[in-house]
Amino acid sequence: MNNRLVDVVAIGNAIVDVLSKSDDAFLASQGLAKGAMTLIDGNRAEELYGAMGPAMEISGGSAANSMVGVAALGGKAAFIGKVRNDQLGGIFRHDIRAAGVAFDTPPATEGAPTARSLIFVTPDAQRTMNTYLGACVDLGPEDVDEDTISGAKVTYLEGYLWDPPRAKQAFVKAAEIAHEAGRKVALTLSDPFCVDRHRTEFRDLVDGHVDLLFANEHEIVSLYEVAEFDQALQAVRGRCDVAVLTRSEKGAVVMQGEDLHLVDAAKVDTVVDSTGAGDLFAGGFLYGYTQGKSLYDCARIGAIAAAEVLSHYGARPEAPLAEAIAAEFA
Amino acid sequence: MNNRLVDVVAIGNAIVDVLSKSDDAFLASQGLAKGAMTLIDGNRAEELYGAMGPAMEISGGSAANSMVGVAALGGKAAFIGKVRNDQLGGIFRHDIRAAGVAFDTPPATEGAPTARSLIFVTPDAQRTMNTYLGACVDLGPEDVDEDTISGAKVTYLEGYLWDPPRAKQAFVKAAEIAHEAGRKVALTLSDPFCVDRHRTEFRDLVDGHVDLLFANEHEIVSLYEVAEFDQALQAVRGRCDVAVLTRSEKGAVVMQGEDLHLVDAAKVDTVVDSTGAGDLFAGGFLYGYTQGKSLYDCARIGAIAAAEVLSHYGARPEAPLAEAIAAEFA
Repeated sequence: MNNRLVDVVAIGNAIVDVLSKSDDAFLASQGLAKGAMTLIDGNRAEELYGAMGPAMEISGGSAANSMVGVAALGGKAAFIGKVRNDQLGGIFRHDIRAAGVAFDTPPATEGAPTARSLIFVTPDAQRTMNTYLGACVDLGPEDVDEDTISGAKVTYLEGYLWDPPRAKQAFVKAAEIAHEAGRKVALTLSDPFCVDRHRTEFRDLVDGHVDLLFANEHEIVSLYEVAEFDQALQAVRGRCDVAVLTRSEKGAVVMQGEDLHLVDAAKVDTVVDSTGAGDLFAGGFLYGYTQGKSLYDCARIGAIAAAEVLSHYGARPEAPLAEAIAAEFA
Repeated sequence: MNNRLVDVVAIGNAIVDVLSKSDDAFLASQGLAKGAMTLIDGNRAEELYGAMGPAMEISGGSAANSMVGVAALGGKAAFIGKVRNDQLGGIFRHDIRAAGVAFDTPPATEGAPTARSLIFVTPDAQRTMNTYLGACVDLGPEDVDEDTISGAKVTYLEGYLWDPPRAKQAFVKAAEIAHEAGRKVALTLSDPFCVDRHRTEFRDLVDGHVDLLFANEHEIVSLYEVAEFDQALQAVRGRCDVAVLTRSEKGAVVMQGEDLHLVDAAKVDTVVDSTGAGDLFAGGFLYGYTQGKSLYDCARIGAIAAAEVLSHYGARPEAPLAEAIAAEFA
């Protein structure tokens, strides 16, 4: 990890996205849960890929996308995640490094291939993800570099990491190192179904390990098994230092103690593909946070970063985000 | 090849495009020939990829793109080309089949990996290609299926095929089978530098084997080593049945015997990436040709297909081309 101090280090699943345009009829015919991330095994991945239209491959992975956002804004970011030493793994490694994010986790030399997510983008710009975790299941605590974690202002963890069995050990190890070093730990709940799979553990995590919690409306409602967003707001109050709750086009709510900050969504001319919007919101927020911005401004940066990836296919920024932010804050 | 009769069968290099946004300063720093296709070896591919920004992978290959265009318009198309049995080869195979093009060339099981083209797209939408041919060098006459060729209305060959050494044998074998079966042979000159490398052979080909010749302005000028397009028009006259000459935003000229047809370029709101525009023009033209359309209408279809791929990244159509054509001819 070059032993350099970074603003944010993330641990997440290292995934190449396979994106294809689709429609609701196809989702229905394949029994896909629209808007969600569904885990699939290798056989199902092959079957579903066979039914998928022509696609494009773009590096993804939720926390990895967020780190690309941090770097695109001018922050120092690092990523820990597991690929296989195959062509897709080479693509993932190239893309994240080319985006300026330190990535030195050694690839697996045997076992499952690099993870991919088959993503169907419908005309309403919604993305439906079907993820084969592949080599991600080989991530373990041995991949967590103590110096990197203890040197990072924030260690960011994705809830998706709770799916591959050994990754949660990496997760807990990293959180403990970070706190011993007086650093902050951030968690994203990732997906409502992911919350369903790991609700009890996630609640314990939020209470015991997490300083900054990122969730969208559906995820936070699922976490506390309440009916409405307002109830979720009450439920999460006091459980972590900062809760960053996104609500798509309705903007975001940032809560710290008794203080609530409401931030509008940034304007997008044409929403093309929602893949990565939440990831970039978190990346933008974390960039602002590690630069000492106010929570309100952190969320404004997050909203601008999210708007950029909504405007094109793929979950990583194409336009110079730092310039967009400079213009907004000029 | 399922023994089905097809409208067009193409033989070409089977390539996955690796597309990245870039600028003129980067091209200069790497000594890249803007707008051209340059052949690179494996070491240079690795070096250049290391210098490239974050990228996306989209299946390409000139003649392969053309066949996707034929299929997208409702024609029956097949492709012959060589990938390796690796992940990129799997991506190429999936994408071309998912686009409705028959593709049954067995992959190489040893030797170089699947070909890739590192493509730098500048803000002026120009694309600069650097192609590592990889497994394409394993294509040979044994891959040419006689039934497919003799059953196809047109056999379409890309000039790029003259680069890998054994492919020209496949090329000549296919042309001979096609003509023995009373079918048409079409050739694209592919690239001005490609014409430089193979000028004498290309001239002999046009005189002896080619019914339909596709070239852009720069390529046809290079083929006959003349200074201006008008001189090239005179030079090619009578050497093949139909010459289809494209001139980017100036439209196209179709020449048959003494008849010239001038066709305007189709309107594009925002030109994003010129990768594949010539390929789709040829695909659209060949679709019309095999449907018995007039040469003028063939070129109109080509222009519409080209305009579609100019509007987004990647060399294969994203929008339903058949609908666009139906609207135009309604």
